[in-house]
Amino acid sequence: MTTESFSSSSLPVRPAKQSNAHPFAPLSADEIRNAAALIRAQWPDNTQFHFKTITLREPAKAEAIPYLEAEFHDSPLPSIDRRSFVNYYLRNTNKFHEAVVNLSQQSVEYNARLGPNLHAAGDGEEILTMERIALEDEAVKAEIAKLKLPKDTIIVADPWIYGSDGIGDDERMYQMFLYMRDPENAAEADSNHYAFPLNISPVVSPDSHQLIRIDYLPTGKDNTVTGPKPYQPVPANEYLPEHQKLRQDLKPLNVIQPEGASFTVTQEGTSNTVEWQKWTFRVGFNQREGMVLYDVRYDGRNLFYRLSLSDMNIPYADPRHPYHKKAAFDLGDAGAGIMANDLQLGCDCLGSIQYLSVVLSDDKGDVIEMPNVVCVHEQDAGIGWKHTNYRTGRAAVVRNRELVLQSIITVANYEYILAFQFNQAGEVIYEVRATGILSTQPIDQGIDVPWGTVVHPGVLATHHQHIFSLRIDAAIDGHSNRLVYDEALPMPRSDFNPHGNGYYTQETVVETSGGFDVDYNKNQVFKIQNPAVRNPVNGKPVAYKIMAPPFQKLLSDKESFTYKRAEFADKNIYAVKYRDGELYAGGQYTNQSRGGTGVRSWADRKERIVDDDLVVYVNFGINHIPRIEDFPVMPVEILKVALKPVNFFDKNPAMDVPPSTQDFNRSTLTSEIHTQGSMEAKVDGHGSVCCAGPTPSSKL
Amino acid sequence: MTTESFSSSSLPVRPAKQSNAHPFAPLSADEIRNAAALIRAQWPDNTQFHFKTITLREPAKAEAIPYLEAEFHDSPLPSIDRRSFVNYYLRNTNKFHEAVVNLSQQSVEYNARLGPNLHAAGDGEEILTMERIALEDEAVKAEIAKLKLPKDTIIVADPWIYGSDGIGDDERMYQMFLYMRDPENAAEADSNHYAFPLNISPVVSPDSHQLIRIDYLPTGKDNTVTGPKPYQPVPANEYLPEHQKLRQDLKPLNVIQPEGASFTVTQEGTSNTVEWQKWTFRVGFNQREGMVLYDVRYDGRNLFYRLSLSDMNIPYADPRHPYHKKAAFDLGDAGAGIMANDLQLGCDCLGSIQYLSVVLSDDKGDVIEMPNVVCVHEQDAGIGWKHTNYRTGRAAVVRNRELVLQSIITVANYEYILAFQFNQAGEVIYEVRATGILSTQPIDQGIDVPWGTVVHPGVLATHHQHIFSLRIDAAIDGHSNRLVYDEALPMPRSDFNPHGNGYYTQETVVETSGGFDVDYNKNQVFKIQNPAVRNPVNGKPVAYKIMAPPFQKLLSDKESFTYKRAEFADKNIYAVKYRDGELYAGGQYTNQSRGGTGVRSWADRKERIVDDDLVVYVNFGINHIPRIEDFPVMPVEILKVALKPVNFFDKNPAMDVPPSTQDFNRSTLTSEIHTQGSMEAKVDGHGSVCCAGPTPSSKL
Repeated sequence: MTTESFSSSSLPVRPAKQSNAHPFAPLSADEIRNAAALIRAQWPDNTQFHFKTITLREPAKAEAIPYLEAEFHDSPLPSIDRRSFVNYYLRNTNKFHEAVVNLSQQSVEYNARLGPNLHAAGDGEEILTMERIALEDEAVKAEIAKLKLPKDTIIVADPWIYGSDGIGDDERMYQMFLYMRDPENAAEADSNHYAFPLNISPVVSPDSHQLIRIDYLPTGKDNTVTGPKPYQPVPANEYLPEHQKLRQDLKPLNVIQPEGASFTVTQEGTSNTVEWQKWTFRVGFNQREGMVLYDVRYDGRNLFYRLSLSDMNIPYADPRHPYHKKAAFDLGDAGAGIMANDLQLGCDCLGSIQYLSVVLSDDKGDVIEMPNVVCVHEQDAGIGWKHTNYRTGRAAVVRNRELVLQSIITVANYEYILAFQFNQAGEVIYEVRATGILSTQPIDQGIDVPWGTVVHPGVLATHHQHIFSLRIDAAIDGHSNRLVYDEALPMPRSDFNPHGNGYYTQETVVETSGGFDVDYNKNQVFKIQNPAVRNPVNGKPVAYKIMAPPFQKLLSDKESFTYKRAEFADKNIYAVKYRDGELYAGGQYTNQSRGGTGVRSWADRKERIVDDDLVVYVNFGINHIPRIEDFPVMPVEILKVALKPVNFFDKNPAMDVPPSTQDFNRSTLTSEIHTQGSMEAKVDGHGSVCCAGPTPSSKL
Repeated sequence: MTTESFSSSSLPVRPAKQSNAHPFAPLSADEIRNAAALIRAQWPDNTQFHFKTITLREPAKAEAIPYLEAEFHDSPLPSIDRRSFVNYYLRNTNKFHEAVVNLSQQSVEYNARLGPNLHAAGDGEEILTMERIALEDEAVKAEIAKLKLPKDTIIVADPWIYGSDGIGDDERMYQMFLYMRDPENAAEADSNHYAFPLNISPVVSPDSHQLIRIDYLPTGKDNTVTGPKPYQPVPANEYLPEHQKLRQDLKPLNVIQPEGASFTVTQEGTSNTVEWQKWTFRVGFNQREGMVLYDVRYDGRNLFYRLSLSDMNIPYADPRHPYHKKAAFDLGDAGAGIMANDLQLGCDCLGSIQYLSVVLSDDKGDVIEMPNVVCVHEQDAGIGWKHTNYRTGRAAVVRNRELVLQSIITVANYEYILAFQFNQAGEVIYEVRATGILSTQPIDQGIDVPWGTVVHPGVLATHHQHIFSLRIDAAIDGHSNRLVYDEALPMPRSDFNPHGNGYYTQETVVETSGGFDVDYNKNQVFKIQNPAVRNPVNGKPVAYKIMAPPFQKLLSDKESFTYKRAEFADKNIYAVKYRDGELYAGGQYTNQSRGGTGVRSWADRKERIVDDDLVVYVNFGINHIPRIEDFPVMPVEILKVALKPVNFFDKNPAMDVPPSTQDFNRSTLTSEIHTQGSMEAKVDGHGSVCCAGPTPSSKL
C-alpha cells in the first residue's frame, strides 16, 4: 500500500504552544499550522503542497481509557502525546501522502507516499478549481455554444466524484455535470439550476488541471447520445422565497426558556463537554465525520466510548455511462465536517441555543474558521410517560424533554440534517433528515423511464439509495461487551400451550465478527450487553438495544464496483473487534476506491467478539424513488436509530422527571389568547374519565 | 345471527329538537336521550335496560357524498335522516340487542335480539359492578384471608375481558385479576397496585352478577398452582411524583404563540370543522373509535372520506390458564372514545390549544359529559426543508409546522396517546405512543421464564403484542381509487447494465380484495392511486403512499382463537371494497368473539377493487418484550404511519411556507439569555461554508 517512506524527524518548526489539550480535543489553529510546518520541513524548500487533511489523530484506546477513568475520578491525569493525522499531495501531481505528526514531541512519526488507486477526498478549493477549468475550457465552450442559449445565460458545473468502474480510472478525476440558470432570470445567483440540466459532461483531472474528455449524456430510453441541440425554452422551478406566493396564515410559534437552557457546555480550548439531565459527554468535530461524541455516560455509568456517523453511500440506479459511476461516499469523498453549515439563530434550531464553532484545515495547511457548526438545544418531544388511575381520575404525566446536537451538511445539491438526541429515559437517538435538491439529469420530453421520475419538464431525478453507517463503539458498564440478538418465537402446541397463543424469546450470542440482517418478522432485536454486570432486580445482563428502521440493502450486484466499495451497504449490522484506527465503514480512502478496506473486510477476519472490545456499525437508509413533491427542494424524510436501555436501570429512569404542569409549561387556551394569566393546573387534576367515582376496593 | 325481531314503530316519544345537524355530527345529548326513549317505547313499561351504545349511525356513503359535494360547492344541501345505532341488554340478562333508530322520523327501523356468542363491550358502570361483586364475595374474601395480609391492606380488582378459548365460554364473563396496594401505604388511593399482583383470580358473570369460580394463577415455570400463601413483604414501586426524588435541574420550556394559533375550529352543534394551512376536515368522535376524521381535503382536493383507528388487539404470550385468554380488543371490547382522558391545559399538549368536548351515552340511556377529549394544537417539528447554495452561501430554510389532534385513552393499566398530525407538505401522520403500566402477574421469586420479564420482585410482565389497525377510506381526487405497490428490483447484467448498478421500479395493481405483506427488502411501497387524474408535469396517476413501520405479525397459531378473532393482525395491509357499516377490522362484536366477522372475512369475498370504492386497513404494532425500564410506567414507545403524496401535486407543496427567520421564531443565544432583543436574521444570511466565495460560473 505504501511505496515510499520517510524517516521520522524531530526538527522543531514553529512549535504549537505546549498543550494541555484533552486527548479528544480537535486540533487547534496553532496545532494545524504546526503540523503543516512539520510536514513541510520534511521536504525541499520550494515544494508546493496541497493539504487534504490535518486532523486529530486520536490516541490508542489503551492509552485513552486510563485517561478517561482518571478524569472521571478526579485522579492525576496521565500524559498522552498530541498527534495529527495528515493527508497531502505534492501540488498538481498524483503524489498522495499520509503522515502522523507528534505535536508533543515535534516529530513526524510516519510519512509515506501511498500507492496506486488510493486517492484523497475533494476539498473546497479543488472543487472550485475543477468548476473553473471545466467552464473555461474552449472545447467545453464550443459544446455549450451548440445549445444556442440566450445571451447572458449562466452555466453552472457540479463536480462529481468520479466513482469507479475499473475502466481507465486509476488516476483521480472529476465528472462534471453541467446545468444552467434560468435564462429569463440570469442575474439571480441562487436560481435553481437543477431545473435546467444539460447533456454535456466534461471530465477533468485535479492532478494535471486539464480537461480529459467531454461525455455526452443519454437523454432517451436507451444509451443513445445525441449531443447538444438548440435549447427549447422550459419554465423555471425556483425555491427562493421571493419566487413563491407565500402562505399568509402561519402565525409565530416561539420556544421560550425563561430561565435559560437546562444544559451546560464547558469549553476547554477546542474541546467541549456537555452535561444535561444526568448525561455527560465530550463533543469532538472533524473534517470527515463532523460531530463525534466521546465518553458518553449516564449518571456516571459508562455507555459509549465513541459515537459518530461513519460514512454514507449514495448509489444511483441509472446503468448508463457515465451515470453508473454516481455512488458517492459523502463522508469519505467529501467530509461531513467541512461541509457543515453555519447555523443561524432562530432559523435552524429554536429555543435557548448554544453554538459550537471549530477550525478545520485548508488546502494550504492553514485554517478555515467554521462558526456555528453544531447547535446545542433542548426540545419538547411530547409526552414522556403518562398513567391515569381510572378509579380516582388522577393522572401522572411528564413531558419528554430532549437534548439535541444538530449539524447540517450541504453536499452540493443535497442536505442532511444530522442530530444526536438524548432523553431522560436513558435513550440516545441518531436522527437523519434528508432534504435539499435532487441531483437531476436531462431527459427528452415525453419520455418515461423506470429508473427515475420526471420532476419538471426535461428533468429526470434518478432513483438512488442513501445508506448510512452509524458507528457505535460501546462501553456498556465497561469495555468488555457482547452482541446478542433476541427473537420472539411461537411455542409449539403442547399440553403446556394447548390453545396456540404461547410465545417466547430466545437470545443468541454473536460469537464472531460479521455482517447481520435483521429479521423483523421474528422481532429480531440486537443488543449490546455486558454479562459481567447484572440487573439488581431480575439478574439479567445490562444491555442497550439497537432499534433501526428497515431498508432495502444495496441493489447493485455483488460483482459490481458499487458493491465492493460500499462495504457496509449490504447488511443491517456489522460487528467487529475494535482496532485502533478503524473508523470508517467504507475504508480510509473511498474516492475511486476498489473495496477491500472497509468494515466487511474487517468482519471477514472472523475474530471472536464475545466479552471483548466490540464495535457495531448500524446501517440504515432509504431507497429514494423521487416524487415530483421532492422538487425543487424535498420535504424532510426522517430516519431514526435509537439506542435504548434493556435491564440497564432498575426502573424507568425518567420516573424522577417533574410532573408536567401548567404552572411550568404555560400553555394558552385559544379562547383566552388575550388573557394569558398564570393558570395553575393541579398535579392531581382529574385526568379521566369513564368510571369516575370512589374506588370499589375491599378493606380488610 | 338474529333470533328475534321487532316491527318498526313510529310512536313519537320525547322527540329531539328538529335537527339540522351535519350527517357526521356525533349525537347530541337530546338525540341520545331521544333514541333511548324510542327504544324503551318498544317494550313494556317495567322493562329494565342496560344500554351499551347509543351512537351516530352514519349515513350510507351514497347519501353522504352528494351532501359533502353540495356543502363544498355551497349548493343547497340534500336532506339526510339522522339515525342512531343502539346496543342494549335487558338488564341483568344475556338478552343482547341491536337497533337502528331514525331520529328524523321518530321511528325504530330495526331492533333485534342477537344470537349466541355475540356480546357487548364492557362499560364503566359494569366494570365497577364487577369489581364490587368480586371483592365482596365471601369465597373470594376467604381466599384473600389466606394471604394473611397486614391489617387495612386494600385489594384492587382489575376486570379483564374474558377472551375466548371455546371452553364453556358461550356466556359473557369477566376474569378478575387481583392486586393489593402497598400495605405500608394503604391510605394512598393512587398507589401502584401492579407491583403487588395476587395469585387469586375470580370469574364473575355480568348477566347474573354472580361469582362463577375462583381460579388460582400459576406462579412458577409450569402450570402448577399453589393457591394463596402468607404474604412475604416486598418493596413498593410507586409512580406518583411525591414518591420520587425529582430532578431539580430541568428548566421551563414554553411554547408561546403570541398571535394565537394558525388553525380555526368551527363548531356547529356537536360537529367541528378544522381549517389549517390548506387542510380542511370534519372531526367526529364516538364511543368506540374516539376521534374520526371525515372529508379530509387539501386545498379543496379530496383525499380521505373517513380516517379512524379501527381496532387494536393485544394478545399475551403466556400459554397457561387463564392467561392464554388475555387478548383484548381495546376498541371493540372497551372503546377508545369512552376511555378518553379529560386533557389538562399545559400538561398533555403545549402552546395555544383548543379542546373538543363531547357527550356519549351511559348505561341508563342518559349522557356522560366527556370534556376535553381531543386537544387541537400546533407543534414545531424541526426543519421542513432546507437548501444552501454552496457557491453563494445563501440558505433557504423553512420549519415544519404540524397540526395535531391528540386524544389519550386509559385502558385500565395502560395508556395510548393517539394523534392525527398534518403538515404543510401534504402529509398526514397517525402517531401512537404506548405508555402506562404493564399488566403484571405474580411470579415466585428466583424464577425466570422466557415469555416474560421480571420487572419487580415477585412481579412478571408477560410479553405481548400491540397490533393496531388504521382504517383509511380514501378518496384520492375522487371515490374511484386503486391500490398498487411499487417494488425496486435490480436490473440483470446486460449491455444496457454492464456494471451491475442498475435498478428500476415496477408497479403492480392489486386486483382483488385481500391481505398483503410488505416486503421491505424489495422496498415495497403501497399507494392508493387515482389513474383517472394525472400529474400535469409527468403524467403519472395521482397517489398517496402508505409508510408504516415493520412489525411481527400475530404469533398465535392459525388454529388458535386468538388468530381467528384478530382478523387484521396477520397482515400489514388489508384492502376491501367499501360496504356501508363495515368499520371495525376485528368485527362488530369482539368481546368473546369467535372470528369470521372482520376484515379478513370481508377480504375473502375476493371482490375486484380496481378503480372502485376502496378501503385500506393499515396494520402496525409492536411486540412488547418488557424491559425493567418499562416499569412502573413505561417511557413512550412511538409508532407512526404516514400518508404522503406521490405525484399528487406538481411540486413540493411546502415551497410556499414562509422562510424560517429569527424575527419570526425569536430564539435566544444561551449567552444572551438576559438580553432577548429583537435580532433579525437575514433571510440571505450565509448558511455555508466550505467553498465561500463568488460563483465560478461562465458567462456566455
